[in-house]
Amino acid sequence: MVVKIGIIKCGNIGVSPVIDLALDERADRKDIAVRILGSGAKMDPESVEDVTKKMVEDIKPDFIIYVGPNPAAPGPKKAREILSQSGIPTIIIGDAPGLRVKDEMEQQGLGYIIVKCDPMIGARREFLDPVEMALFNADVIRVVAGTGALRIVQEAIDKVIDAIKEGKEPELPRIVINEEKAVEAMEFTNPYAKVKAMAAFVIAEKVGDVDVKGCFMTKEAEKYIPIVASAHEMLRYAAKLVDEARELEKAMDAVSRKPHSTEGKRLSKKALMEKPQ
Amino acid sequence: MVVKIGIIKCGNIGVSPVIDLALDERADRKDIAVRILGSGAKMDPESVEDVTKKMVEDIKPDFIIYVGPNPAAPGPKKAREILSQSGIPTIIIGDAPGLRVKDEMEQQGLGYIIVKCDPMIGARREFLDPVEMALFNADVIRVVAGTGALRIVQEAIDKVIDAIKEGKEPELPRIVINEEKAVEAMEFTNPYAKVKAMAAFVIAEKVGDVDVKGCFMTKEAEKYIPIVASAHEMLRYAAKLVDEARELEKAMDAVSRKPHSTEGKRLSKKALMEKPQ
Amino acid sequence: MVVKIGIIKCGNIGVSPVIDLALDERADRKDIAVRILGSGAKMDPESVEDVTKKMVEDIKPDFIIYVGPNPAAPGPKKAREILSQSGIPTIIIGDAPGLRVKDEMEQQGLGYIIVKCDPMIGARREFLDPVEMALFNADVIRVVAGTGALRIVQEAIDKVIDAIKEGKEPELPRIVINEEKAVEAMEFTNPYAKVKAMAAFVIAEKVGDVDVKGCFMTKEAEKYIPIVASAHEMLRYAAKLVDEARELEKAMDAVSRKPHSTEGKRLSKKALMEKPQ
Amino acid sequence: MVVKIGIIKCGNIGVSPVIDLALDERADRKDIAVRILGSGAKMDPESVEDVTKKMVEDIKPDFIIYVGPNPAAPGPKKAREILSQSGIPTIIIGDAPGLRVKDEMEQQGLGYIIVKCDPMIGARREFLDPVEMALFNADVIRVVAGTGALRIVQEAIDKVIDAIKEGKEPELPRIVINEEKAVEAMEFTNPYAKVKAMAAFVIAEKVGDVDVKGCFMTKEAEKYIPIVASAHEMLRYAAKLVDEARELEKAMDAVSRKPHSTEGKRLSKKALMEKPQ
Amino acid sequence: MVVKIGIIKCGNIGVSPVIDLALDERADRKDIAVRILGSGAKMDPESVEDVTKKMVEDIKPDFIIYVGPNPAAPGPKKAREILSQSGIPTIIIGDAPGLRVKDEMEQQGLGYIIVKCDPMIGARREFLDPVEMALFNADVIRVVAGTGALRIVQEAIDKVIDAIKEGKEPELPRIVINEEKAVEAMEFTNPYAKVKAMAAFVIAEKVGDVDVKGCFMTKEAEKYIPIVASAHEMLRYAAKLVDEARELEKAMDAVSRKPHSTEGKRLSKKALMEKPQ
Amino acid sequence: MVVKIGIIKCGNIGVSPVIDLALDERADRKDIAVRILGSGAKMDPESVEDVTKKMVEDIKPDFIIYVGPNPAAPGPKKAREILSQSGIPTIIIGDAPGLRVKDEMEQQGLGYIIVKCDPMIGARREFLDPVEMALFNADVIRVVAGTGALRIVQEAIDKVIDAIKEGKEPELPRIVINEEKAVEAMEFTNPYAKVKAMAAFVIAEKVGDVDVKGCFMTKEAEKYIPIVASAHEMLRYAAKLVDEARELEKAMDAVSRKPHSTEGKRLSKKALMEKPQ
Repeated sequence: MVVKIGIIKCGNIGVSPVIDLALDERADRKDIAVRILGSGAKMDPESVEDVTKKMVEDIKPDFIIYVGPNPAAPGPKKAREILSQSGIPTIIIGDAPGLRVKDEMEQQGLGYIIVKCDPMIGARREFLDPVEMALFNADVIRVVAGTGALRIVQEAIDKVIDAIKEGKEPELPRIVINEEKAVEAMEFTNPYAKVKAMAAFVIAEKVGDVDVKGCFMTKEAEKYIPIVASAHEMLRYAAKLVDEARELEKAMDAVSRKPHSTEGKRLSKKALMEKPQ
Repeated sequence: MVVKIGIIKCGNIGVSPVIDLALDERADRKDIAVRILGSGAKMDPESVEDVTKKMVEDIKPDFIIYVGPNPAAPGPKKAREILSQSGIPTIIIGDAPGLRVKDEMEQQGLGYIIVKCDPMIGARREFLDPVEMALFNADVIRVVAGTGALRIVQEAIDKVIDAIKEGKEPELPRIVINEEKAVEAMEFTNPYAKVKAMAAFVIAEKVGDVDVKGCFMTKEAEKYIPIVASAHEMLRYAAKLVDEARELEKAMDAVSRKPHSTEGKRLSKKALMEKPQ
Repeated sequence: MVVKIGIIKCGNIGVSPVIDLALDERADRKDIAVRILGSGAKMDPESVEDVTKKMVEDIKPDFIIYVGPNPAAPGPKKAREILSQSGIPTIIIGDAPGLRVKDEMEQQGLGYIIVKCDPMIGARREFLDPVEMALFNADVIRVVAGTGALRIVQEAIDKVIDAIKEGKEPELPRIVINEEKAVEAMEFTNPYAKVKAMAAFVIAEKVGDVDVKGCFMTKEAEKYIPIVASAHEMLRYAAKLVDEARELEKAMDAVSRKPHSTEGKRLSKKALMEKPQ
Repeated sequence: MVVKIGIIKCGNIGVSPVIDLALDERADRKDIAVRILGSGAKMDPESVEDVTKKMVEDIKPDFIIYVGPNPAAPGPKKAREILSQSGIPTIIIGDAPGLRVKDEMEQQGLGYIIVKCDPMIGARREFLDPVEMALFNADVIRVVAGTGALRIVQEAIDKVIDAIKEGKEPELPRIVINEEKAVEAMEFTNPYAKVKAMAAFVIAEKVGDVDVKGCFMTKEAEKYIPIVASAHEMLRYAAKLVDEARELEKAMDAVSRKPHSTEGKRLSKKALMEKPQ
Repeated sequence: MVVKIGIIKCGNIGVSPVIDLALDERADRKDIAVRILGSGAKMDPESVEDVTKKMVEDIKPDFIIYVGPNPAAPGPKKAREILSQSGIPTIIIGDAPGLRVKDEMEQQGLGYIIVKCDPMIGARREFLDPVEMALFNADVIRVVAGTGALRIVQEAIDKVIDAIKEGKEPELPRIVINEEKAVEAMEFTNPYAKVKAMAAFVIAEKVGDVDVKGCFMTKEAEKYIPIVASAHEMLRYAAKLVDEARELEKAMDAVSRKPHSTEGKRLSKKALMEKPQ
Repeated sequence: MVVKIGIIKCGNIGVSPVIDLALDERADRKDIAVRILGSGAKMDPESVEDVTKKMVEDIKPDFIIYVGPNPAAPGPKKAREILSQSGIPTIIIGDAPGLRVKDEMEQQGLGYIIVKCDPMIGARREFLDPVEMALFNADVIRVVAGTGALRIVQEAIDKVIDAIKEGKEPELPRIVINEEKAVEAMEFTNPYAKVKAMAAFVIAEKVGDVDVKGCFMTKEAEKYIPIVASAHEMLRYAAKLVDEARELEKAMDAVSRKPHSTEGKRLSKKALMEKPQ
């Protein structure tokens, strides 16, 4: 059986670009098909509704993932209503502001994953151009992936896929990814690699606070420019810390790798030259 | 007028995750609407055809961007045929293997942008799991963005948008992005920043060759694992060089930033504290 | 006139080791004499009372600085009472928990300086030995000095000294040092140096939160060891960021230096080879 | 029994700020009480005499540590005379110039510890302001702590405390800390970590020679500014080497930690997650 | 028996400066004597002929090594003819352009070693002065040595020496050193150290292509200056990668060392403190 | 006129490999011809005599440079006697131990250049194999070149060449290169680049002392292995500092370059894109 997964992307968070790739990193899984529908950078209610309805009504996947910033905002709220009523098992993946609607999502019968180390960008015109935006996202992806957060997301989705393949009602994940959970999923061998990853996670989380301050709580350009710029410098260092953590694992030849088999099984290995099992 | 842009993403290259965001980095442009349709990691002809047809027949945008690996492969070939016949202005964005069908694309009336620093990933099961995949993509995004390649892509698309807004037949770009063109677009102030970016570009380009060798030309795991792993190490250093280049620009307070205005105009600035114009 | 400054050190924060040195960095000021009384690492009420009384009754300086962790804790509380009643102008210098007694200190007629980037240490036996403690303090000193926080402290005290030298009633400082104030005092030339210093400040501030969690809110060793260890890794990177900021200033030959003259005047210079004025 | 330790700090060397903290790094030892008396940056005979007499006559501790630059200078000479006659067991801790009075100190019945990697600062007004001073001290503390020198100091003092607790006449240490002794005390696991620490020690030691040249042997500002500035750059790299050494130990999860128990026992551990014993 | 080795150096490649030293790194081998004849930077036919003839006719060594750029160029061609006819066993050591005359060298009865990671320098007057030249060579030596390429060269020559010592006709090596062979010779313990070294090798090899483009295929200074400058930046990073690889081996205390005994035997060891055997 | 320069290389110091290349970095000077004669790693009197006599009697150059370790050792002593009597203008280039025979060389009518930052290698069998030897030399070359020492050497020789070309009796240089002279020759623009280079020079100089200790003054392997290993770590960091210095100059686009013209004139430039003049 091939499970058809529908992914809705409205606006962008760090996991957005890699969420589908993380399920099928070498594009050789035979048990899933993915369809993505998105509205680009925008997440206004109209765009989100349009995209979400198309997913529910046209694509009709076995299972839906909605990924984007702030699940509590009007656009995502609209999406949650539609998805909740669609009867299709759905996971909402969002960043920290989504914590406010955690209970609401549970009541809506939706699964959710909140990635706390996936911070808001420094969205000020004097600072954020396409290049800065891309560099920020590169750093976020590094943090999300290298700390283990991405692995939690991927494994949670894989479990839903497994259930559907077995004909079961999938148990939808309801996870708030903090630093402890992330690094546990990453199965670090060297404890210093683990604590460096935790440190990176916490710094990245704090980046979000600083960017919120710079974007929403500060009016004068001469004040908010340094604030959002400092947030991106923080993230740049969080990404460096993640790199340092991974290099420590390399020093022990103990990088945890969990590739998918073509049947969608999650294999595991540590020594570089060994076969995953 | 709001230009409706359709983006098809089948499989993934470095620019894929940021292509739509690069057009509207702060999600505040009033002159464009973006719809994305994708098939995730897969780019087999069936998936690509399904997605491309939906874009052409259902979404019916003013303008289409198809982005993904190897425009010469069977899936993208199918897409190109459909898109060529659709009458909708289309740009194919791909990586180096697309050079083989450059002329063909021109004959099909398609625009194209080939990003030479956007290398193939080290797609071997013993090495590539979701985390390694994401880290690779983070590095590619950094190279694509920091060398200036992304800016060429974005400006080429913006020009098409501008033409459509003005009611003109858009002149479709036909660009092969090499290191010289990339760094020119980035408008480096410090010449050493520029040459470091060029160096990073060339290393990233070479990564693709090494990964092709590791993925398609080497059979024994004990040989291909080190090959693909070395390719990712090369890319990691290309990304570091890009960072070093940008830090040199920061040392002169001369980072070129080209944010969009809400009307979609490309503004420009260098000193951090100044207003873009 | 020689102003006699009494400094009480009970327990330790990042500014503690350098507070006296920062007033007379080359030990050649003719206008001040410093006496220090301290109780080492301890800050229990008995120790603090003993030391504070000796300062007030035996040393009888013109002006007192009390520096140490958490001005709201029982020991420092005792000190504040004695100092408030002594009639000797006094400044309390402390870390973030002191914010709770800000108003109280004002009512007591005390000056205060709260240094928000001066975080609590990871005081867990499995992690913190004398070497780790010293390395942590080295990093804190770097952050406190390189972000500009130390300069605010030093200039605030110098102003009090100036007033006393002029026979005036000193106006006691009441300052909460946050990232904006710190970097303003540091007079960065390169705006990226400034935002890197701000980033370091914010990370260092967050270190305190993580250490509080690891020291007071987590009971199991297998949980709190990684927490406090991650806090020190965060601080290590904050210190690296400060170094990077200063190197950017060096790249412009624009490191702000404000040495004291032998008469206690605060001179100023930027280019390395120029004379301070 | 609680041993009362009196610490005199006149002028500053790298171990000065951490000497008391190194005895009681988490402020929970029940077997010692510490009183500090100091004269800040100054170490002229009058200041030193005043402070030393107060310690001997008022505080009357069981045991005295005098710490500061150049034990051969007039101020420390005065202190040594007073302390020698006081009958209170005393250790003089100083930097390399103290080697000249090694024998004299032994004849005076004083213990001593000379820390060769604790260099003189670049005390030139054009270069040394409070911020530069603090950064230099941060680097020295890193070198003193990370090479193992601080551990020798701390263990030597702990042995004296132990003797006093047992009612014995303490055997006073007479130690010149060179690179071999320092790294032996640090119990490095990785031999490259050890040699990197040795390298850092030797560079730091050389910093002292360069600063002496810049401060005392060169008259023209255009010559001595670069000399003292180069000395601080040397130290900055010595501190980086220490960091690299420690990171190598982390890579093996073998950082030696020797925390105190609340009873003042020196415990020991290497793996991060294990209990000290 | 003492084997007399004649080394001809005309022009310079990365192995040139260390080829003789690599045979007798501590200058204590009793079984060989080395004589070097060279023409400095020049490799025109006249200079090469003069030097080569002197070697063959005056020095008359048991065995000749010719080392320099491009064995296919006119000068080296002349040398090969003379050496081929001399009857003295000869090895030509050169860089990648020598691949074109591989078969020719075999027909001439010459041994050869082509070092693919030994790139051409960026020989443009606006860029290359003596300092830049030396820094480039430092980086090449680092890459040649640290990747294992130098070890292949040295062991191949040692085998010829061994044969001559045993009175046998030496079997001349015919080796093209690529990244796989290099790292195999280096006997890395940590597989990530190995792949980093491979990555460095490939980048260094690519440097040659870029410098050829900048030196021979580009005419305008405003174009070729950035090209050759970018090539040197690439090499600088290749050298950094080699350093990172070696540091990983240090982290495992597993740096492979193969010193010569005084009798010219190749010993071997890994742990730093052990004896070579 | 073409000046014929004879270079004798017996044993190796850091400038040895680049001395001839530094005179003709792009191999296009028309005014000089270089012949090199060397004895490889060995510098025993017999080898040196043989090589030196061949140079004087066979090659008969206009001018001789003898380069190698310790000009005071028996081998170089023999060379100096022969060269002094030859009547051919000669410069001896050596490392710090040569200071002992400075006056003697002057009396012999020889020129000399002593390069103080060119340290002895850690010549212990347990540590020094061909790879370690080459890496050490790479670091020395970096220090010699990047601090400016090499430029002094090159310019001193160029002046002799100029004199000979003009038919004048050349004034032979008698220079001891210390850190001040080196950085002056390098014409740094950024004063921090200059002081970093000075710092690197001094560290490199100290490396020699440590290696002498490890090679000649320590007998037990368990002691001398760490000593020589620490010396190489020191040098590795000196080389890093040189790199940092050069990067600071790049940040200002002010790297001093002094290429030769084809006529042997020393040109000069700073901005990367400008023509040398």
